[in-house]
Amino acid sequence: MNPRDLSPADARARFRDGLVTPTAGWCDGWTQANLITVPAALAWDFLLFTQRNPQPCPVLDVLDAGTVSGPLLDGDIRTDLPLYRVYVDGDLAAETPDVTGWWREDLVSFLIGCSFTFERALGEAGVPVRHVEEGVNVPMYRTSWRCRGAGAVGGPLVVSMRPVPADQVADAVRVTGRYPSVHGAPVHVGDPRELGIADLDAPDYGDAVTVRDGEVPVFWACGVTPQAAVVESRPSLAIAHAPGYMLVTDARDDAYLVGA
Amino acid sequence: MNPRDLSPADARARFRDGLVTPTAGWCDGWTQANLITVPAALAWDFLLFTQRNPQPCPVLDVLDAGTVSGPLLDGDIRTDLPLYRVYVDGDLAAETPDVTGWWREDLVSFLIGCSFTFERALGEAGVPVRHVEEGVNVPMYRTSWRCRGAGAVGGPLVVSMRPVPADQVADAVRVTGRYPSVHGAPVHVGDPRELGIADLDAPDYGDAVTVRDGEVPVFWACGVTPQAAVVESRPSLAIAHAPGYMLVTDARDDAYLVGA
Repeated sequence: MNPRDLSPADARARFRDGLVTPTAGWCDGWTQANLITVPAALAWDFLLFTQRNPQPCPVLDVLDAGTVSGPLLDGDIRTDLPLYRVYVDGDLAAETPDVTGWWREDLVSFLIGCSFTFERALGEAGVPVRHVEEGVNVPMYRTSWRCRGAGAVGGPLVVSMRPVPADQVADAVRVTGRYPSVHGAPVHVGDPRELGIADLDAPDYGDAVTVRDGEVPVFWACGVTPQAAVVESRPSLAIAHAPGYMLVTDARDDAYLVGA
Repeated sequence: MNPRDLSPADARARFRDGLVTPTAGWCDGWTQANLITVPAALAWDFLLFTQRNPQPCPVLDVLDAGTVSGPLLDGDIRTDLPLYRVYVDGDLAAETPDVTGWWREDLVSFLIGCSFTFERALGEAGVPVRHVEEGVNVPMYRTSWRCRGAGAVGGPLVVSMRPVPADQVADAVRVTGRYPSVHGAPVHVGDPRELGIADLDAPDYGDAVTVRDGEVPVFWACGVTPQAAVVESRPSLAIAHAPGYMLVTDARDDAYLVGA
């Protein structure tokens, strides 16, 4: 079966069984989410950080200390993503498809909106989604823009980039603006240097994609932002999805559509 | 000068100087906010409660422990609202225009979106706003619907009601749905008994308004909801705005408009 047509439960079962793959294009119509898990001692600062930076950090749900499932996830947050990153004292300690061995009862998990949610709407509006066309992970970049900090948590804005034909940029803005809880409208259109990005072909996360003649790079706030901020605060332990390897949730994309 | 034409700073100065009045219709185009202030020990549960109930509890900003001003408020949160309610162990201990004497350094203040923000847009769409027409406070009701709880914090959904001519209900839904961070679209249209409201003429907060022949009562989630939930958890101290006597912020209503 085409990954596009799988149910979220079926997709999560495959990941739980060991399949490792980026999830762009999987489970058409179902919302994907970023994961960031931190010790309870850091959870207040982190939740405040998300509240102060809602465009890169739209919180869809919080699994309180020690909880591994919830309304968006009839499963186990420790096994149901295809690939995780584990950070110890802010350093990458492991990249693994199962974090059960790292689990602690004081861990609070945040599920954060992902721009994959609006990619279907972009496609339906005739706007190309290049990384899906090319079968690679979306390109993501750390920018020189700083988020508004909260206590110990602060860091750069991370963005994802999609090349859009110049005459379709307005459509891309309009369509994605209707999904404010999954990053919404672009934060920047055009020159990557204004974001402090030196080379579009060298993303900090994910894969480079082709930018064709007549296309403009369009940048959206990215759910890797909270992961970057948590890493900067160097907590004793943090667990996140590997960029592009998302949680597929039991929520429909339409649930996050506003003003249709 | 008509209160409608005042700047937020001017309005707050009048309230600081002792003027006590509901704020509906004040400072046209500027966002008003609900206030709820709790001890830091309860702040995590409360912020989680708001995240789990975003429609009644859309957080616009958080002033962390001991802080009395912020980006939405170039002033002092303890004096700049027209009227406050102070709760001690969950019981109403005072209704006062100045809470400086109650202040503690461990208090965290939450500014929460208010449906007054979309009333201007309703008016521009030709939808009547009866309580403004009648010069009274908006009617608010405790419903029999329960919010999703978080730790020690839980309570009923509180709603505000505006009577809308039957042929304009669709407009009212469409217009307010574009303001998801200030309660958004109605939670219920029609029969108040389905919300457990026995008598529209006896609101739990604010004033009754006239419902004319051919009009339907339309109910929106209300920012008094977090106040009701905090009171139920009976913290040692909580401070809130008196219902209808809001904080006038330095943010424009347009800042919360989506998908225009």
